[in-house]
Amino acid sequence: MMSPSKQAYVPFVSVANMMKLVHAIGVEQVMIDLAAEIEADFRRWPLFDKTPRVASHSDVGVIELMPTSDGETYGFKYVNGHPSNMKRGLQTVTAFGLLADVATGYPLLLSEMTILTALRTAATSAMAAKWLAPKGAKTMALIGNGAQAEFQALAFKAVCGISEIRLYDIDPAASAKCAANLAGCGLKVVSCDSAEQAILGAEIITTVTADKQYATILTDNMVGAGVHINAVGGDCPGKTELHKDILTRASVFVEYPPQTRIEGEIQQMDPNFPVTELWQVIAGTAAGRRAARDVTLFDSVGFAIEDFSALRYVLGKLASLGLADQLDMIADPDDPRDLFGMLMRAA
Amino acid sequence: MMSPSKQAYVPFVSVANMMKLVHAIGVEQVMIDLAAEIEADFRRWPLFDKTPRVASHSDVGVIELMPTSDGETYGFKYVNGHPSNMKRGLQTVTAFGLLADVATGYPLLLSEMTILTALRTAATSAMAAKWLAPKGAKTMALIGNGAQAEFQALAFKAVCGISEIRLYDIDPAASAKCAANLAGCGLKVVSCDSAEQAILGAEIITTVTADKQYATILTDNMVGAGVHINAVGGDCPGKTELHKDILTRASVFVEYPPQTRIEGEIQQMDPNFPVTELWQVIAGTAAGRRAARDVTLFDSVGFAIEDFSALRYVLGKLASLGLADQLDMIADPDDPRDLFGMLMRAA
Repeated sequence: MMSPSKQAYVPFVSVANMMKLVHAIGVEQVMIDLAAEIEADFRRWPLFDKTPRVASHSDVGVIELMPTSDGETYGFKYVNGHPSNMKRGLQTVTAFGLLADVATGYPLLLSEMTILTALRTAATSAMAAKWLAPKGAKTMALIGNGAQAEFQALAFKAVCGISEIRLYDIDPAASAKCAANLAGCGLKVVSCDSAEQAILGAEIITTVTADKQYATILTDNMVGAGVHINAVGGDCPGKTELHKDILTRASVFVEYPPQTRIEGEIQQMDPNFPVTELWQVIAGTAAGRRAARDVTLFDSVGFAIEDFSALRYVLGKLASLGLADQLDMIADPDDPRDLFGMLMRAA
Repeated sequence: MMSPSKQAYVPFVSVANMMKLVHAIGVEQVMIDLAAEIEADFRRWPLFDKTPRVASHSDVGVIELMPTSDGETYGFKYVNGHPSNMKRGLQTVTAFGLLADVATGYPLLLSEMTILTALRTAATSAMAAKWLAPKGAKTMALIGNGAQAEFQALAFKAVCGISEIRLYDIDPAASAKCAANLAGCGLKVVSCDSAEQAILGAEIITTVTADKQYATILTDNMVGAGVHINAVGGDCPGKTELHKDILTRASVFVEYPPQTRIEGEIQQMDPNFPVTELWQVIAGTAAGRRAARDVTLFDSVGFAIEDFSALRYVLGKLASLGLADQLDMIADPDDPRDLFGMLMRAA
């Protein structure tokens, strides 16, 4: 049996290697880099093939495929969302992703994306806030202190210059975990007993809770003039975090409207509820924050282009960092029409 | 750093291990087993989540995701189709696939599927012919002698009792390769100089050509009464093999009409062109072949449920055969909310 050619192997970034990659670069630098990569891809947004993610729902969660392509490279992510997993000691969200060459359809990279999704979600939030939050914002309330919380805190520090994080979670143990993890990172961290206390003095409010239900993490009277809300947790049908009165009052920015209208906070609103696509703010074709007293809301659900940017970033780092295994995933007969012969010769 | 738990690992079947698995069981037995698995899943067809595959088209090919779920297990396949790849020495079709637990969203299996797709496509064709072809058929014309050809020949031998295969390809080298690979397998193999010659005496005609264009591999006058046509090659928009007059005359059977109307031979016909879903024939709610003189046509494009059946078959074999590597693909912190802590402790 001949050895497979180089084409037969797909570079694979394992969880262990993804962690090594993050530490080789530094987690805050990764946030800065990812925010820049995602912003660059949002700037060329019209170029991409876009589709709402392909979701398979069950009573306990959802499994989604999120494909996109820029015409040269194709990418997709597999991701689940199972809030009940936590009780079993499992992650709510796990993910992996792939890049492929559009010209041949051959995979270029397979990568863990549980960690990478956490990084890109936080980097996207911080990138959006750079465009939408009040200038000079220093304090962020962080409501929901689960798996995504520290990533949000560090991204806002690295990308937006936030210096104080005010934590609140219905489970004090989650806030304690988050505060312990953030100790020594250079942020002032304040643990709070209520959402009301957490938002005191905060120019940015991030909600990142995990329950799959219509929840009201923020009511209208909690949101003062001039605040930027980064709503991360409402990301599937039946799962929202904000009272709809906030949406009526805020300027709402979204990733991909056909997906956000199904999954985001605006699923509570009329199908024609006015929103601005974030990419247009970045491209200069739509206004972001118009006045200091505006309430801006990034109704984030996560879009395939962000995963594409993150996977391309990882692939770009492999040349210098290594950190990939080679997976024998693609059958590669010497004569491409002789797949059967290859199989028989392996006997 | 603690070692990841068992949940962090996903069994991965490489190309090398898939070949070992096929040889451990025997290729004809695999065809018989897969046909039975696919037939069993077709019998419970209404249970499955079904969607047309999610395709990303370019000038040179297509990349597709094919998801489905039976409510307990979720599966999807990544597959490309790039007819121009052959000129570069690459496969036209490469694929891999995944199974996951619907209850948790955690992957259960990652597998190469270039070889497995070739096996399941042939097994599906033979299973359909078992229901649709004339009883006692012994001779099959095989037009298009590329990567899928030998798999079709062996599946029809193993599942339908075909004893003679009549080969034709516009490239005689492809037929020579196919004939050489089939030597000694127990089939009488006849190489022919034209499609007309290949179909002489054939009760079953299989077309499995690869060009991405509207082609006419069979014209109406070539198809005699009582024949079963297994049309495998027409499987994406703009790619067909049969003259439309054949479709008008034949009883047409399909996998999933919303997908076949876009991708199959019937893309040439009116959107209301009558077809029968193959699963209904198997379940006993629709007629298959009605008379000896009927022309039956299985307009096969490949559907996600066939991949699901094949992946479940492979997963079921791993317990006894091994043949999987363990991929560190799922981040698995001790505390599911402490993904960031896991990342930091890895430093």
